[in-house]
Amino acid sequence: MELAALQDVIERTYGERDRARGIPSTVAWLAEELGELAQAVRKGTRAEQEHELADVLAWVATLANQLGVDLTAAIERYGDGCPRCAGLPCACP
Amino acid sequence: MELAALQDVIERTYGERDRARGIPSTVAWLAEELGELAQAVRKGTRAEQEHELADVLAWVATLANQLGVDLTAAIERYGDGCPRCAGLPCACP
Repeated sequence: MELAALQDVIERTYGERDRARGIPSTVAWLAEELGELAQAVRKGTRAEQEHELADVLAWVATLANQLGVDLTAAIERYGDGCPRCAGLPCACP
Repeated sequence: MELAALQDVIERTYGERDRARGIPSTVAWLAEELGELAQAVRKGTRAEQEHELADVLAWVATLANQLGVDLTAAIERYGDGCPRCAGLPCACP
């Protein structure tokens, strides 16, 4: 899936509610989902890990939508490999 | 950018180092980046928010790579809207 398509479906699905709750609530919810992901990584099944990775992605998309950030443009920094050493593979010290 | 392309470039850039550090380190690093994102949302510039959103995405891709999870398949749950109410927009109570 394209990141732009993800942002679009998340906007159409949750955009109005998310904006009504406000950005700090979205940050809190993203943190909660990261906690669930961490637990799934430690002791969950593969299906639970996949589920929680998707939830974190969805909340990252929600936050980007609320901030007006295009994730495709944002991730472009990594398009040619490591943005710090400009390398692929990374050769940072 | 396609999520699969993101996972691919992150694998080629950081895969070997990430695997050497292990999954718990990746979870810790993702948590650190989420903290930086939360700070950027609270008091950062738009450019800083974009930067930190990309870093979180990159670490989500790293974690998915280490777990062997295909993010495109994982996010498919959201493809038709809310996976709980099967709606677009979401009509969860």
